[in-house]
Amino acid sequence: MVTMNFDEAESFCAGMTEAEDEAARELLERISGKWALAVLQVLGEARGPLRFSRVLERTGPVSQKVLTQTLRMLEREGFVTRTLYPEVPPRVEYELTELGLGLLREILPLWRWIVGKLPEIERNRQDKASDKAAAA
Amino acid sequence: MVTMNFDEAESFCAGMTEAEDEAARELLERISGKWALAVLQVLGEARGPLRFSRVLERTGPVSQKVLTQTLRMLEREGFVTRTLYPEVPPRVEYELTELGLGLLREILPLWRWIVGKLPEIERNRQDKASDKAAAA
Repeated sequence: MVTMNFDEAESFCAGMTEAEDEAARELLERISGKWALAVLQVLGEARGPLRFSRVLERTGPVSQKVLTQTLRMLEREGFVTRTLYPEVPPRVEYELTELGLGLLREILPLWRWIVGKLPEIERNRQDKASDKAAAA
Repeated sequence: MVTMNFDEAESFCAGMTEAEDEAARELLERISGKWALAVLQVLGEARGPLRFSRVLERTGPVSQKVLTQTLRMLEREGFVTRTLYPEVPPRVEYELTELGLGLLREILPLWRWIVGKLPEIERNRQDKASDKAAAA
């Protein structure tokens, strides 16, 4: 039995409307997609603007198309800026906004917690799998 | 230009292997799916075991099938326990584990930050939409 004090239990949705709750969940879903967080990390670590090709290089095995979609989504939400320099050939640079940096800061403790708990979660999965095998 | 101190920038992936980073990202993606977080909230607010029908009632407009899949995933990861009471008819109860409560606690500050920033994010979206309209 999990013990939880009353205030904490009450506070999960305190002061949130249904619409806010829904909008927050949708946003969390978008930024938790396969590449969004990786791109935010790359831009955070760069501590300055990066060209598309650099972002692509540092993000990992993502296709150009998916990276473009991810950057557009992040730009639309206001987490990233895109600046076009009309040179020949044109140069496009991406940079984290203050909002994007704030998001990264808020995600970091959760991220660390998850990584710390991975061994426990992995054990849980294996126990479940062996329970299943024993029952079969 | 966003200012970020060196330590903070370095710390995003400090001490994480590629495999951990990948596993953490996959986990975050699963728990950020449409209903997982809502179910965790419902079980957290219940402060005790809940029957399937109660979880269904309190989670919102989710189908039985999707709720079952969500609960199975949460059970597999170790965030929720499922207890079967061999009565007639059989009773099944779900409860948050310590790990599940820990996850909820870690997500809460991020959740609140997102809700607090929703008006700013909404303004960004509208600005982008009107830029587009002006350019067309």
